[in-house]
Amino acid sequence: MSTSIRNATTEDAAQILEFIRALAAFERAPDAVVATEQALIRDGFGKHPFFHCLIAEYDGEPAGFALYFFNYSTWVGRPGIYIEDLFVLPQFRRLGIGRDLLKRVAAIAVENGCQRMQWQVLDWNTPAIDFYRSLGAEFMDEWRTVRLNSEMLERLATGGDGHAEDKTA
Amino acid sequence: MSTSIRNATTEDAAQILEFIRALAAFERAPDAVVATEQALIRDGFGKHPFFHCLIAEYDGEPAGFALYFFNYSTWVGRPGIYIEDLFVLPQFRRLGIGRDLLKRVAAIAVENGCQRMQWQVLDWNTPAIDFYRSLGAEFMDEWRTVRLNSEMLERLATGGDGHAEDKTA
Repeated sequence: MSTSIRNATTEDAAQILEFIRALAAFERAPDAVVATEQALIRDGFGKHPFFHCLIAEYDGEPAGFALYFFNYSTWVGRPGIYIEDLFVLPQFRRLGIGRDLLKRVAAIAVENGCQRMQWQVLDWNTPAIDFYRSLGAEFMDEWRTVRLNSEMLERLATGGDGHAEDKTA
Repeated sequence: MSTSIRNATTEDAAQILEFIRALAAFERAPDAVVATEQALIRDGFGKHPFFHCLIAEYDGEPAGFALYFFNYSTWVGRPGIYIEDLFVLPQFRRLGIGRDLLKRVAAIAVENGCQRMQWQVLDWNTPAIDFYRSLGAEFMDEWRTVRLNSEMLERLATGGDGHAEDKTA
């Protein structure tokens, strides 16, 4: 009984999408996933991939995944790693697979000269929060995450100048 | 009296570092910046840059900057833009320069097929929060940001297996 971790290939696209959907369901957003296998292949496995993905297998069965990309810290002056998704299927939990995945991503970070690894967790996911704390992780709770979604993004990109808001920043 | 926005070049490295330091001071972490001009040139202007940077000038004077990179949404199945730094020097505020910078980054996001633009703001920075809200931004307050810093990252990367924590995830 053992865990192995390997880089994903285009042939894993269907499995990755299944993991993404299972994670979204766990995160109480089962209908949020509109990604397709084709999109994952295009964006993750081309010449300049937007993300990297590791697959964990337990006795040869797909058990979980970690999907990450490089971000940048202007304070440190170095790239870091941001983990977008970390997930282990329910039937493979409590076997250390989540830790194995995080450990592998941490090793990749160190190899690439990164001094930080960052991710996000839902505030009600207490088991994960406790686990991350046990690794010595810090919680950056003074920072709020701000997002402009599709419609508002387009409105800002194409909108005229001279709004009242112009004077506020 | 007008604002122009252009892509940064290696010749802007000293100015970018000055902006980074001024932003860190504003964010109450004046000693947090260990980045150097050399690091910014290496990481931002090579063959595979880790970040992109825009400089705003007001009547030819450097007035502010936006530093961003591409992230990835596995739900949307598309890259997005993450803005690491957005800053306008105090003497150039209330001229709409922050909005002009955000607007330009939003246009770059749309050109690249992104459906999301994301960043973070300190919870006490009320003027910025109000400004972002006026643009229709959402605050993802159920998500906590988790970070492993240098020492803990290295410990995880190189640490042995079989810890008690192995069983928690």
